[in-house]
Amino acid sequence: MPTDHINHNNHLTAEWVKQFRPYAKEGKCASYIPALAEKDPNQLAISIIGTNNDEMKAGETTELFTLQSVSKVVTFILACMERGLPYVLERVDVEPTGDTFNSIIRLESHQPGKPFNPMINAGAITVSSMLDGNSPQEKVSKILQFLEQIVGKELKVNEEVYQSEWQTANRNRSLAYYLMDSGFLDCPVEEALEVYLKQCAIEVNVSDLAMIGLVIANDGYHPLLNKQLFPKQVAKLAKALMVTCGMYNASGKFAAFIGLPAKSGVSGAILVAVPSHAGLDSPFPAGCGIGIYGPAIDTIGNSVAGVNLLKHIATEWNMNIF
Amino acid sequence: MPTDHINHNNHLTAEWVKQFRPYAKEGKCASYIPALAEKDPNQLAISIIGTNNDEMKAGETTELFTLQSVSKVVTFILACMERGLPYVLERVDVEPTGDTFNSIIRLESHQPGKPFNPMINAGAITVSSMLDGNSPQEKVSKILQFLEQIVGKELKVNEEVYQSEWQTANRNRSLAYYLMDSGFLDCPVEEALEVYLKQCAIEVNVSDLAMIGLVIANDGYHPLLNKQLFPKQVAKLAKALMVTCGMYNASGKFAAFIGLPAKSGVSGAILVAVPSHAGLDSPFPAGCGIGIYGPAIDTIGNSVAGVNLLKHIATEWNMNIF
Amino acid sequence: MPTDHINHNNHLTAEWVKQFRPYAKEGKCASYIPALAEKDPNQLAISIIGTNNDEMKAGETTELFTLQSVSKVVTFILACMERGLPYVLERVDVEPTGDTFNSIIRLESHQPGKPFNPMINAGAITVSSMLDGNSPQEKVSKILQFLEQIVGKELKVNEEVYQSEWQTANRNRSLAYYLMDSGFLDCPVEEALEVYLKQCAIEVNVSDLAMIGLVIANDGYHPLLNKQLFPKQVAKLAKALMVTCGMYNASGKFAAFIGLPAKSGVSGAILVAVPSHAGLDSPFPAGCGIGIYGPAIDTIGNSVAGVNLLKHIATEWNMNIF
Amino acid sequence: MPTDHINHNNHLTAEWVKQFRPYAKEGKCASYIPALAEKDPNQLAISIIGTNNDEMKAGETTELFTLQSVSKVVTFILACMERGLPYVLERVDVEPTGDTFNSIIRLESHQPGKPFNPMINAGAITVSSMLDGNSPQEKVSKILQFLEQIVGKELKVNEEVYQSEWQTANRNRSLAYYLMDSGFLDCPVEEALEVYLKQCAIEVNVSDLAMIGLVIANDGYHPLLNKQLFPKQVAKLAKALMVTCGMYNASGKFAAFIGLPAKSGVSGAILVAVPSHAGLDSPFPAGCGIGIYGPAIDTIGNSVAGVNLLKHIATEWNMNIF
Repeated sequence: MPTDHINHNNHLTAEWVKQFRPYAKEGKCASYIPALAEKDPNQLAISIIGTNNDEMKAGETTELFTLQSVSKVVTFILACMERGLPYVLERVDVEPTGDTFNSIIRLESHQPGKPFNPMINAGAITVSSMLDGNSPQEKVSKILQFLEQIVGKELKVNEEVYQSEWQTANRNRSLAYYLMDSGFLDCPVEEALEVYLKQCAIEVNVSDLAMIGLVIANDGYHPLLNKQLFPKQVAKLAKALMVTCGMYNASGKFAAFIGLPAKSGVSGAILVAVPSHAGLDSPFPAGCGIGIYGPAIDTIGNSVAGVNLLKHIATEWNMNIF
Repeated sequence: MPTDHINHNNHLTAEWVKQFRPYAKEGKCASYIPALAEKDPNQLAISIIGTNNDEMKAGETTELFTLQSVSKVVTFILACMERGLPYVLERVDVEPTGDTFNSIIRLESHQPGKPFNPMINAGAITVSSMLDGNSPQEKVSKILQFLEQIVGKELKVNEEVYQSEWQTANRNRSLAYYLMDSGFLDCPVEEALEVYLKQCAIEVNVSDLAMIGLVIANDGYHPLLNKQLFPKQVAKLAKALMVTCGMYNASGKFAAFIGLPAKSGVSGAILVAVPSHAGLDSPFPAGCGIGIYGPAIDTIGNSVAGVNLLKHIATEWNMNIF
Repeated sequence: MPTDHINHNNHLTAEWVKQFRPYAKEGKCASYIPALAEKDPNQLAISIIGTNNDEMKAGETTELFTLQSVSKVVTFILACMERGLPYVLERVDVEPTGDTFNSIIRLESHQPGKPFNPMINAGAITVSSMLDGNSPQEKVSKILQFLEQIVGKELKVNEEVYQSEWQTANRNRSLAYYLMDSGFLDCPVEEALEVYLKQCAIEVNVSDLAMIGLVIANDGYHPLLNKQLFPKQVAKLAKALMVTCGMYNASGKFAAFIGLPAKSGVSGAILVAVPSHAGLDSPFPAGCGIGIYGPAIDTIGNSVAGVNLLKHIATEWNMNIF
Repeated sequence: MPTDHINHNNHLTAEWVKQFRPYAKEGKCASYIPALAEKDPNQLAISIIGTNNDEMKAGETTELFTLQSVSKVVTFILACMERGLPYVLERVDVEPTGDTFNSIIRLESHQPGKPFNPMINAGAITVSSMLDGNSPQEKVSKILQFLEQIVGKELKVNEEVYQSEWQTANRNRSLAYYLMDSGFLDCPVEEALEVYLKQCAIEVNVSDLAMIGLVIANDGYHPLLNKQLFPKQVAKLAKALMVTCGMYNASGKFAAFIGLPAKSGVSGAILVAVPSHAGLDSPFPAGCGIGIYGPAIDTIGNSVAGVNLLKHIATEWNMNIF
């Protein structure tokens, strides 16, 4: 893709951000911790990165935000690398539920209480508990290293966010102790929670998100590093999970009307992985990663402006895996 | 694709059927009605049809079987054509549930009782109720006509199967009356059930299934008729539903490990739609439809030999939408 | 009890009715059928009958109303007489649920789907299905005969109410078909529903209710007929069910704060059975039956003025089984 | 009651214990902690104490065992005394559920997550959290003092049992953190749990249990101390709760077939309160308390031999509140 094209497209993304920013009014910043509640709800940023590192971006692209639930994809991939698929799948299923992200009902109603998928809190806490490392710090370091390799720069945990999350983590503690009781936790509850909440508090910008999306889109192959970072099968599985369970209990509607593997977080982050074959007519025919940030979320937990912006792009560029 | 290639491939499918037929032993024919219970559990048939009508097939390809839940995809598409998407989506959601196909719990636990998706019985009965026609016969005629246009031959309802289903339909009646009570049924219960159970009892063979799959794969365009039979958006939506909810409460695992839009029925039928971009390296780079029949099903309702055969093909031919 | 005393007490009940009638404003008449919706919400009537036929009454005591759920106690007793306890208890449990009267969730979530108790719709429909008789008419006749023997006069089904109920019975049909599917219905669904809905539409006044309550209070012995109408064990069981499940999902609170066996109906009826030992200090030391009618019900289904009036009497007269 | 009568009755209870001890074979000692698992499953002891301190007893009457869930009645009464009924009832409802004692589903499915009653773990933990005291030790001291006043001797927490419970309390922790998250916990989780688990580990013998039962039976009045220990209304409420929710999810059956206020624990303890009016024909016409210990419990959590023994006594002596 020639630079001109990208410049042209940067105008395009700027236009789009302008067009979709007003949708933020239909949502609200997450309010359960101050660090999220105090964000500017009108922000909207996007980055799209292709296999040859072409990037289109617009909006508050330097704004840092926490991964929140987007991290669930990352640690799931890491756990599969460290433990192997059979080990992971013995402890967490890959079925969508239609329930809210923090639901506990199914752990009791479906014996033996195996979490249904790694994209809801219960499953993600189980995944965090099985990461490699002798301490929460070690485990979190491995997550950071894995992500830093992908984004090519140092990342860190936002300590303020982490501390706030830690103090309001009662529902997650409830989930974790339930999992512990039924045998689906690999390490002590407080360790698993520390890892889980720290992974949620890792800070990135939209370009970082887009880069993560690009590697997933590329089946684990990092086009800039010329390196396979994780197995193709794990990447496919991650994308399947993003489609069936990635957008909380609006995943079905997202698949139906947008049709791209994506994972959202209550910070307003959306990670999108567009496989090459899903965007043959787009400016990124070899696939791309998309990172979006729009902190005003709907009641389900997804960025309102972000989802609308993404729907527009997917339609405009005819990107859809179905 | 030259004929030689296909002949070669027919040997291949014959080989595959031979290889995967023994998996049937791990399942059992559906037992709730005699017409299904008496089927030969060891049968296994497959047909794969490409855009230029090339067909690879093997096994009991002339065996007739009833669509059962596979019909849910068909009537959903038809309802969208007849009523328009907004009308349909107001009455049935498109979220996966993780519940069994005949579950009623969510109709009560999630107000206002809108069925979660059209691939479970509750949603499919709602869809059947909204089809166009002044009588169940008229509605069923329209379903048959729609399907006959796709497969290019006359189809009919297996009356024996229908009668048996009708007499054992208490659980479906329970669902239908519940839907009626909460306002999610467009016609009287008995009419909706007649349509629903007759659509389930439509008889096809694997080539018919493959042809239906081909048109869905092709976004509603029938390559032999050179005709757009239904809107592209409806086809995409149907494929999204097949991926998120098509294989009962094993849909997540199917998406994760096979990664193709598919819909199964308790008759042992599996309908698969492989979009062009999902099979670029396969003998059907422009996409294909796959029909499978293997009546021995697992406890969830999916053909055991069929799923294993499909997994093998998807892997061999590198077909995957993710 | 001398006549003077009762006359004095009639002034008392009149006073009480006057005092508690205004509570009706906090409720509303049931609205799902016109025959109930059109009732005068401000009516309040009470009858208290002792073992020597002394009656205290006040308010609209000649007003006829339908039994609705109050009939559940009656048919449960009748089924126990006709089939014997073991037969009945094999088909319906006696556990309270905390769920609404028309809930279906537990039939699916607690295998094998045996209804939890005969005071919720599911259980009551099962009970109706097991009554003796070759037709719904015969079964309803037996219910009427049983009740007529108790109240000493002819009773009949309010046809208008029955017809309205029949036409809006979708939720009950849903329950009945579910029960049929899991094997907890003894006769065809439509027959069971006809019996169930007709028993609900039997018309009585508060004196009739009080007389039914008196016989239950007296462990099945009718003091005026000098006759044991049903076994003591069945009467005890009925009273236990009234305490644990008789007031819909407010039964626990009713037991906690009023402490008397009672069964309510959405018509605003309340049947109360005060065993002799529970009212030793009351004007009815040998026990009594209480019938109350106050059609303005709360969201749970209980007469607002009726429950408050009853609480007052129980406190004043120190009547409590605990 | 003359001493002769009681001596005669002691022979009777000895006879009964002999007769019902074999029922223990149908149960098993609770196995989740060693201290309970190692108990002798064949033990069976009973004490019945009347208002004039007459005691009938038999079996292993000096055996000490922990209160477990029986303590829920005690702390509920204490909380009502310390905080007043309105405060307590704002934080815990009094409705039976039909669910297992450690179920968490209803906290999520019934907003705002108020525990349904104080006899299930969720409700009992809430109650423990609202007890008066600046530390868990202080709160436990108050429970012990309250009980010691009743039984007239020093009681203590079995530290071994408490330590074991503490280490296996994951499910209770899950409940407690859930309650904390929804605002139904009055103190930090670990404090509430310490109080809850220590109250469960208080050691008594059957005579102690019987004495507690006697005071509850007597509406809070201690006949030996000639002192009202807690308000009559609280005692009535406690007995109502024992009837509707006291025997885990077999409470309905226990009420139906035995008809006495009772509370069981997984240690095999059963506390029974027989109000005066419920046993007019028994050797204890002024009411009595019954304590039973039989560590072999059924799958629901109730002592098998204990329940059968109690049913026999209730029948023989015609004791029943209904």
